[in-house]
Amino acid sequence: MAKRKVGVWLIGAWGGVATTVVVGLAALRKGLSDTTGLVTALPSFAKLDLIGWDELVVGGHEIRETSYAAEAQVLVDKSHVFNEKTLAGISSQLAKFDRNIKPGTLVNVGAKIESLAGPECLKLKKETAAQAVSRLTKDIEKFKTAEKLDRVIVVNVSSTEPPPPDEVREWKWAEVQKSLASKSCPLPASTLYAIAAMQSGSHFVNFTPSVGSDLPGLDELALKQNVLHVGRDGKTGETLMKAVLAPMFAARNLKVMSWVGHNIFGNLDGKVLDDPVNKANKVKSKDHLLTEILGYKPQTLVSIEYIESMGDWKTAWDHIHFQGFLGTPMVLQFTWQGCDSLLAAPLVIDLIRLTEREARRGTSGIMSHLASFFKSPMGTDEPAFAYQFQQLTQWVDRVSGESDE
Amino acid sequence: MAKRKVGVWLIGAWGGVATTVVVGLAALRKGLSDTTGLVTALPSFAKLDLIGWDELVVGGHEIRETSYAAEAQVLVDKSHVFNEKTLAGISSQLAKFDRNIKPGTLVNVGAKIESLAGPECLKLKKETAAQAVSRLTKDIEKFKTAEKLDRVIVVNVSSTEPPPPDEVREWKWAEVQKSLASKSCPLPASTLYAIAAMQSGSHFVNFTPSVGSDLPGLDELALKQNVLHVGRDGKTGETLMKAVLAPMFAARNLKVMSWVGHNIFGNLDGKVLDDPVNKANKVKSKDHLLTEILGYKPQTLVSIEYIESMGDWKTAWDHIHFQGFLGTPMVLQFTWQGCDSLLAAPLVIDLIRLTEREARRGTSGIMSHLASFFKSPMGTDEPAFAYQFQQLTQWVDRVSGESDE
Amino acid sequence: MAKRKVGVWLIGAWGGVATTVVVGLAALRKGLSDTTGLVTALPSFAKLDLIGWDELVVGGHEIRETSYAAEAQVLVDKSHVFNEKTLAGISSQLAKFDRNIKPGTLVNVGAKIESLAGPECLKLKKETAAQAVSRLTKDIEKFKTAEKLDRVIVVNVSSTEPPPPDEVREWKWAEVQKSLASKSCPLPASTLYAIAAMQSGSHFVNFTPSVGSDLPGLDELALKQNVLHVGRDGKTGETLMKAVLAPMFAARNLKVMSWVGHNIFGNLDGKVLDDPVNKANKVKSKDHLLTEILGYKPQTLVSIEYIESMGDWKTAWDHIHFQGFLGTPMVLQFTWQGCDSLLAAPLVIDLIRLTEREARRGTSGIMSHLASFFKSPMGTDEPAFAYQFQQLTQWVDRVSGESDE
Amino acid sequence: MAKRKVGVWLIGAWGGVATTVVVGLAALRKGLSDTTGLVTALPSFAKLDLIGWDELVVGGHEIRETSYAAEAQVLVDKSHVFNEKTLAGISSQLAKFDRNIKPGTLVNVGAKIESLAGPECLKLKKETAAQAVSRLTKDIEKFKTAEKLDRVIVVNVSSTEPPPPDEVREWKWAEVQKSLASKSCPLPASTLYAIAAMQSGSHFVNFTPSVGSDLPGLDELALKQNVLHVGRDGKTGETLMKAVLAPMFAARNLKVMSWVGHNIFGNLDGKVLDDPVNKANKVKSKDHLLTEILGYKPQTLVSIEYIESMGDWKTAWDHIHFQGFLGTPMVLQFTWQGCDSLLAAPLVIDLIRLTEREARRGTSGIMSHLASFFKSPMGTDEPAFAYQFQQLTQWVDRVSGESDE
Repeated sequence: MAKRKVGVWLIGAWGGVATTVVVGLAALRKGLSDTTGLVTALPSFAKLDLIGWDELVVGGHEIRETSYAAEAQVLVDKSHVFNEKTLAGISSQLAKFDRNIKPGTLVNVGAKIESLAGPECLKLKKETAAQAVSRLTKDIEKFKTAEKLDRVIVVNVSSTEPPPPDEVREWKWAEVQKSLASKSCPLPASTLYAIAAMQSGSHFVNFTPSVGSDLPGLDELALKQNVLHVGRDGKTGETLMKAVLAPMFAARNLKVMSWVGHNIFGNLDGKVLDDPVNKANKVKSKDHLLTEILGYKPQTLVSIEYIESMGDWKTAWDHIHFQGFLGTPMVLQFTWQGCDSLLAAPLVIDLIRLTEREARRGTSGIMSHLASFFKSPMGTDEPAFAYQFQQLTQWVDRVSGESDE
Repeated sequence: MAKRKVGVWLIGAWGGVATTVVVGLAALRKGLSDTTGLVTALPSFAKLDLIGWDELVVGGHEIRETSYAAEAQVLVDKSHVFNEKTLAGISSQLAKFDRNIKPGTLVNVGAKIESLAGPECLKLKKETAAQAVSRLTKDIEKFKTAEKLDRVIVVNVSSTEPPPPDEVREWKWAEVQKSLASKSCPLPASTLYAIAAMQSGSHFVNFTPSVGSDLPGLDELALKQNVLHVGRDGKTGETLMKAVLAPMFAARNLKVMSWVGHNIFGNLDGKVLDDPVNKANKVKSKDHLLTEILGYKPQTLVSIEYIESMGDWKTAWDHIHFQGFLGTPMVLQFTWQGCDSLLAAPLVIDLIRLTEREARRGTSGIMSHLASFFKSPMGTDEPAFAYQFQQLTQWVDRVSGESDE
Repeated sequence: MAKRKVGVWLIGAWGGVATTVVVGLAALRKGLSDTTGLVTALPSFAKLDLIGWDELVVGGHEIRETSYAAEAQVLVDKSHVFNEKTLAGISSQLAKFDRNIKPGTLVNVGAKIESLAGPECLKLKKETAAQAVSRLTKDIEKFKTAEKLDRVIVVNVSSTEPPPPDEVREWKWAEVQKSLASKSCPLPASTLYAIAAMQSGSHFVNFTPSVGSDLPGLDELALKQNVLHVGRDGKTGETLMKAVLAPMFAARNLKVMSWVGHNIFGNLDGKVLDDPVNKANKVKSKDHLLTEILGYKPQTLVSIEYIESMGDWKTAWDHIHFQGFLGTPMVLQFTWQGCDSLLAAPLVIDLIRLTEREARRGTSGIMSHLASFFKSPMGTDEPAFAYQFQQLTQWVDRVSGESDE
Repeated sequence: MAKRKVGVWLIGAWGGVATTVVVGLAALRKGLSDTTGLVTALPSFAKLDLIGWDELVVGGHEIRETSYAAEAQVLVDKSHVFNEKTLAGISSQLAKFDRNIKPGTLVNVGAKIESLAGPECLKLKKETAAQAVSRLTKDIEKFKTAEKLDRVIVVNVSSTEPPPPDEVREWKWAEVQKSLASKSCPLPASTLYAIAAMQSGSHFVNFTPSVGSDLPGLDELALKQNVLHVGRDGKTGETLMKAVLAPMFAARNLKVMSWVGHNIFGNLDGKVLDDPVNKANKVKSKDHLLTEILGYKPQTLVSIEYIESMGDWKTAWDHIHFQGFLGTPMVLQFTWQGCDSLLAAPLVIDLIRLTEREARRGTSGIMSHLASFFKSPMGTDEPAFAYQFQQLTQWVDRVSGESDE
């Protein structure tokens, strides 16, 4: 079989998640890691002929100036993850990918994210939204040409933006275009990246709570450009637990009176979320789920706090106060101690592989069968993880059937 | 619509679960409780024309001598459950059901359970297995006649027995019959109750880890007698959590390295399980699940300890040590603080209603669609709670369709 | 020995803590409760000849209009505490104490507390601070005369006020007097109550985070009036844990990197604290401790959230991230599930008994030996619970020695 | 000031605790670690002129055959502790100490520990207790001479032995001597090491639950030889928490109804304790404390389970069920996630430094002022950590006073 060559274009390319994606791909390629944590490494995905680790080339946009080696070392020092021998074994690969990283845009990213930007990026601060889209599009196109890629998957793994005005979420493509042409375009950076991706003929995956392609106009564009897209907000920890546990309470008719969730962590994402404007987007994405699953709204509380000593380790404490038979109050508590980037990265790799596979099928628009990966999945109303995952396994069965032919 | 009249015959009739079932039915009948905790009270079950609270009559077998009022008061004093006003409002109903309770059998119940028996029951200690079955059968038949019942559902909610010799689990009906006729029949009491139930033309639900009807010979008998049966071991707390959480780890390809579960509680069930012989049955029922769901065997530990001060409140601490991407170890811990009888009782009422409904459809044998209620479900290999529950909702859809006709 | 007669004057007299104090005193008097939870019932206090349950008469100030029976029933219904038989046995005693409750003052209590006031209290809304002090003083004096009391102990168990301007905390008695005479006196209600108490010749205990008598001018007044006072903020749950655990980390030279504490509860106190203005006082009182004990300031987070379903049950989750030898990060987590009023009430009774005993010794001013009862103890710098408690046992030894003479 | 030279002779010299002690000393010497976790690095100890990191020379007895580098790597790989750069920086120092390790004895260590022994040690299997003592004594004497040491501190950090017959604990020195001369001497290995230490004129610290010097005969010997000794069982995690928390419940007269503690971990110590004979000694050492502090015996449960995936990380879950005022049950739970060797090692270093300092004062016998370091402290009845620590600070004050002279 001829080797394929597919591009992975990461938005927030030197962030914790992106760094772990790149470390992971390099380690898998060199046989320095097993495939634990990768959904697409489950036996049932074996027949799908998914893209291989050595068939992926990484590039991306980023607003800070650093390197994969430096960012990986931060994860080692602050969060005690990665094996230093593994890092040594992949250093030349990391350096190679470093060279594909281009300056991102600061348009509508908010003050908090702007404060992180490096000099190269700040130079571009005055560009308009339309100029930004044009530049970003060209970066992706050049990457595709230079690396001779069959196709490119753009994945947004950047920090959470402040939410745009509500009306943006209803915009058709015509309104998006009109706004882009205007002087004060309120479209958030994540949407500009999505437009750039689609206009370059690439597929777009939004792993963050930011808006990205989650508005009617972008879906129009995707269909027009014959590309795929999906999102939003990778479901890695506490919300995954909610999507798993809440259906149990619903199925058993146990009445959730209150569900309190406190999240503490100390990575860059946490620092950005420490700004209330950015946090709003995230909390919203974590909180709507319960009402959808339970069919009523219990009292809920979601807090996300930046605690520096935690590094990339997110600890969530959830206290679920529920009422059983004959009015009896009971309690379930859990604490989740997970390393954020290491939970997210394999899912990003899964999404790349699954998007690439679907692209080969020639479809376009929202990939609703990928709902199990997201906190706020696009294209479906199913909030329960088990049934979302069933949608994925049904897709696997369908595509496997096609592969047999 | 003419009123139906259906019997509920409880094995372990004055135990904590049975007492809560009876208190619950009486409270529901008087409108003193809402239906929280009852699966069959979910909106999707509304079309099934399930049996009503006021159409059920309770009787049963029991080895101790006490009363519903006395047992309910123990729950109030030791476990701070029930509303005393509710109890006052249903006292005459409780006393009425007390009069339907007959002595159970001590055949093969083990020393621990035997030590709890009252004088009436001890008088019958010398009866053989065959004599016991004959007596128990007549008790159920008399109940049906005296109360003019359409049908009777027998539910085992008694304490966990020691396990019988392994070969018993393979016996056909011929071997069961032969053994019954012998002097040293090793069939456990739960199986004798199941035989009595079926021979009286009643349906049998086994809410305990004891063997009951879970051997080929009893399924033969059920088909012969045209009755339904199902079991084993109500899934109320820690194991319910396992059946909900383990599929998440499997779906995400997160490798469970170890799963430790410690359970502490202080009710009569706990006292009986404090005997290692009885505990063996229970731990086995709680432990097989993980391997079935994960497809490999992590190191597991399940302990069940009798801590008197806890009363009926079972607290489970589970520590799940799992490996994520790039060999990163992470931890999920939960503590479950649930009141055992109040979690179990509504499920028992659900099982009565669902068995009664299925009986009206005229089928016989194992009701595999009720797997979501049990730790060791009969007639199915599906271990994940969400997909077990899906089997139930599919049955609901099917039966609702029939109701429409 | 002739029977003594001592008055207990509660500020916030129908609140949860006060109601539990009154239920507790009545139950102890009738022999319906043992003395668990009372520090002064420990064997080492036996020789002190402390005041008896039947020697105390209760009255107080309150801004709402309700009754002990009604408030006790709320605790039964929402928080599942108290034994209903106990309540029945003490109902006439509760009704008797109800008649001693007079309207409190709304001067400087803040909008949140004001919103809870009943009609009687609202009628007095226009009184000045000086008028309020005068009225409150007379209420206490009348109580003392009418009930023929040897002495009166005033205890503030009302909701937490917003903090006054900082400079108030430095005022001498002359400045307090001058302010009282002015039109816009900023003294908080708790301080007005303290002045009223002292001017009536009574002793003052401040069980809340409000300022009360914790300013130089009030200590001057106490010495002038020859009365005792002490406070602030009863140490009942999470902060008690901090005062116990932090010294362990300090003694072992384990470096606390961060200490996160989340508190959820649903009683009236929680509702008042849900207002950020009132919460500020409380959080400050909970947070200063760690720095004092550790000698450095770790990152800390204290949240207090009103979760209605919790009723009077306060659940605190604390996550302590500490560094051990060779830079190794470790974690201690605890969850505290305590019933607030039932933790506070016995301490209030203890403080009444210990203040009454000290009063018999004829001393005046701050009782610094009572630091172990308070989050922000007055008259001492010792923050560690064990050494605070040692100060109490040393006082016990001293006073026991006097009793022997 | 002339440099001192003091020997540290470790029993179980290549075990996890010993390895961490050696890594720690080497890292401190090279300035590669700060002093977090060392009690003797607290400011109050500064005036004591304690021995420096570069004044200590390490040797010891061990039954396995390995090296410090290999054992340190196990801790890196299985438990994710230590910084690999630190290890690289101290490798020659580790190798130097490796050369001072001599074969230990297998006399009365039990089958579990025996199964770990290497070939050199197995060759010596036939030696009698007296022969063993003689050999061990000579090893220490040679070490002292060869390294030109002022004095030697012997510290037992080996795996927990099975307990000896009860009468041994009462033996006087005459009986010990008589037994040593007999053929079937039941003295456990830890006691033989203690005798060897004392006979070589060295001081003995027992950091394990094994008997060691905790019998009257050994105290006689210590006084006779003019040496110091102390023990038993380093108080590092769950028991430290008990010694800190139980006094709080006692001081507040809150009635502990049950205290359940489950410990899981996966190091060599855990493997040895997985044998019920060895575990008995440990559980006993962890369990007596509560009764001593509370003055009554609540229901207690202590379990220690070997869970391989945990490596050196001990996780303890404690559930404390206590009764408050008016019979109200409440709960405190904690989970402790600590790395066993890294909690123990700094305390071992502290004990070496404090024993060395006391030796310079010329005293002999039990050092009861070191109780805060031990689960079963010798020479004192004080079980509360805070007051044990006070005994240490009082000693510090006393010795500081002497230093001033």
